[in-house]
Amino acid sequence: MRQSELFTKTLKSVPKDEESINAKLLIRAGYIDKLMSGVYTLLPLGQKVIKKIEDIIREEMVALGGQEIYMPALQPKENWETTDRWDSLDILFKVTDASKRQFALGPTHEEIVVPLAQKFINSYRDLPKAVFQFQNKFRMELRAKSGILRAREFLMKDLYSFHLSEDDLDKFYERAVSAYKNIFNRVGIGDITHFTYASGGTFSKYSHEFQTITPDGEDTIYICNQCSTAVNKEIKDETPACPQCGRVDLKEAKAVEVGNIFKLKTKFTDAFKMTVKNEQSEEKQVLMGCYGIGIGRLMGTIVEASHDDQGIIWPEAVAPFKIHLLSIGSESRAEEVYKQLTDAGLEVLFDDRSASPGEKFADADLIGLPYRLVISPKTGQRVEFKDRKSDNVEILEVEEFLERLK
Amino acid sequence: MRQSELFTKTLKSVPKDEESINAKLLIRAGYIDKLMSGVYTLLPLGQKVIKKIEDIIREEMVALGGQEIYMPALQPKENWETTDRWDSLDILFKVTDASKRQFALGPTHEEIVVPLAQKFINSYRDLPKAVFQFQNKFRMELRAKSGILRAREFLMKDLYSFHLSEDDLDKFYERAVSAYKNIFNRVGIGDITHFTYASGGTFSKYSHEFQTITPDGEDTIYICNQCSTAVNKEIKDETPACPQCGRVDLKEAKAVEVGNIFKLKTKFTDAFKMTVKNEQSEEKQVLMGCYGIGIGRLMGTIVEASHDDQGIIWPEAVAPFKIHLLSIGSESRAEEVYKQLTDAGLEVLFDDRSASPGEKFADADLIGLPYRLVISPKTGQRVEFKDRKSDNVEILEVEEFLERLK
Repeated sequence: MRQSELFTKTLKSVPKDEESINAKLLIRAGYIDKLMSGVYTLLPLGQKVIKKIEDIIREEMVALGGQEIYMPALQPKENWETTDRWDSLDILFKVTDASKRQFALGPTHEEIVVPLAQKFINSYRDLPKAVFQFQNKFRMELRAKSGILRAREFLMKDLYSFHLSEDDLDKFYERAVSAYKNIFNRVGIGDITHFTYASGGTFSKYSHEFQTITPDGEDTIYICNQCSTAVNKEIKDETPACPQCGRVDLKEAKAVEVGNIFKLKTKFTDAFKMTVKNEQSEEKQVLMGCYGIGIGRLMGTIVEASHDDQGIIWPEAVAPFKIHLLSIGSESRAEEVYKQLTDAGLEVLFDDRSASPGEKFADADLIGLPYRLVISPKTGQRVEFKDRKSDNVEILEVEEFLERLK
Repeated sequence: MRQSELFTKTLKSVPKDEESINAKLLIRAGYIDKLMSGVYTLLPLGQKVIKKIEDIIREEMVALGGQEIYMPALQPKENWETTDRWDSLDILFKVTDASKRQFALGPTHEEIVVPLAQKFINSYRDLPKAVFQFQNKFRMELRAKSGILRAREFLMKDLYSFHLSEDDLDKFYERAVSAYKNIFNRVGIGDITHFTYASGGTFSKYSHEFQTITPDGEDTIYICNQCSTAVNKEIKDETPACPQCGRVDLKEAKAVEVGNIFKLKTKFTDAFKMTVKNEQSEEKQVLMGCYGIGIGRLMGTIVEASHDDQGIIWPEAVAPFKIHLLSIGSESRAEEVYKQLTDAGLEVLFDDRSASPGEKFADADLIGLPYRLVISPKTGQRVEFKDRKSDNVEILEVEEFLERLK
């Protein structure tokens, strides 16, 4: 795409109340716009990143056996009363219509997915099943100050699984852990993301989180030097040793929770009285797991973990474009190269604007695409190549560059 | 996909308060679930249809020059006061947070997209621009009785365009009309969908709708026998002749509005004081157009227009799967054919359940995939082929069938 036609421009300043690195960089580079505290618009560059993250997650969820659905944000009060969460969840946005009927704006979907599954899961033969969605959640955060890490409206992938036995739930849960590891590897933060034991709340000893190390993370975790499993600070006192391998030399780090998974067991199926008959015609409670990833939060975490003073450094798999092509006073040659690259099926942002070289270089660093190519009178028929992660600049034939990408 | 693993089952009955054909068929076949009046969950089959519709629309919007964004549902009251619509729009859902701040749940996004565009469109050089989104809208419909044709929460594609001159707006508008015609052709309802003149409201003489003829449509239109342009009943008295070609023999029909486009001109840019400097450094008001398609409504309209007593008849481009493969007492051969078809890259729903032939045939008609293939002892190495649109049954070699699909 031609940068001269892009809807956004990079910005010099950000809203005064914005403190977080992720939102500052994403706003300045034109990925997101802040509508108000905790509420952001995804701009064309940001929407492309989100779609790439979504596609990776979707592939892994389908491979896990998940079927994609889409549940409403507008939810009946009655469902939230059934689980006793209408009054107790203080982040619940409530809406009233003209006939005084009340609704919740869903912050999560257990209250919807359980009665839904009840309609189709009638026998042990219908189990196991897993459904997932990419859907916008609402949470009434009063102090939303972490940029897109803690928003009041945010896109989330939530998967819910249903099982006949604890053993079956356990097996699926292990496969979900692997799927999550695949996801964080594929989006480029696998090596700094740790499978973490956390508090299970009222219904389970532990839940598990995936925590990504970032300098400004709001969570504190303790990472096992041996097996890289971590423990959330909230359970550190009761869990002094690594729950995986038993080692006690754990290293403290700041981190952001990018995913969480719970064995809900019968917490919600009990509330809705969801049972099935087993092979012996005995009525059995259905067991559940739930598995979440905040998509905007994941984008923000990648930025927190991967940037420098000049701007964002996108992992290739989620970058909005692979290549930033800069024309510095060599328009017709740049047009040729742009055509050559797009004809080769590559995603290119082509800075064809009549801006100064300094402005173009600064924008390229801020936007943070993996590969920068400069065409100028001094590059002739060749191109100047720079990887965003390195300071090294090389002069290459276009074909050499294409060969490297393979 | 194996039907034995599908999250849903077909249902014998629908909720008592459901009157519309679209919702009745979509619920019974397992495409949607009704959570409450006007609010539906998309189930795996329905989600697949929606994604196919979305992909077609996205392609046409990108070809038109639109850039995809995603704006929030949660919107500041102040923006709606700026356009004087906070009190006047009676379908507006309002939300209050714990600090008593009020928000609207967006039924449309002019109030958000104009101040957003203002940040990036500063000069005539930045025009024209067009952005679009697929995003969930909320409308407080008190009598939601048309199934997914008039929902309280619904996915919509909305595109907004910005222009320096009326001439430029007009040209883009014509191209948007062509894009819309492409969309309705591609989803399979082009021949029954009419470009329709409708009331322009306060800011324009006409707006334009795309109306699809269906027996139970809630709108009445008058179609020109000559050029197939139509006139909405609401402006029929003042528009007795076809506005396109002047003919007066117009034919009355019931129809559903599947798309609408407006020249908003300066209605919203005036409210937000959005201007740019033109080439002569004069301050100019920016002109706008807006272009909507309700995605769920489009799915429902296709069902209203294309079904019989047995069930839905999907146009191929939006069917959740191309082929319904039924195994009738010939499991191992059916498995072979299933593998052969999926290896050929085809989308197949494989009814591998241990259900009766009658149940399988009834489900296939209800679900409404374009091509039914039956494998039974009497078909041997061949398959029984039936097009959902025809009563004709043929026995074919698998290769012959594959050849036909090309």
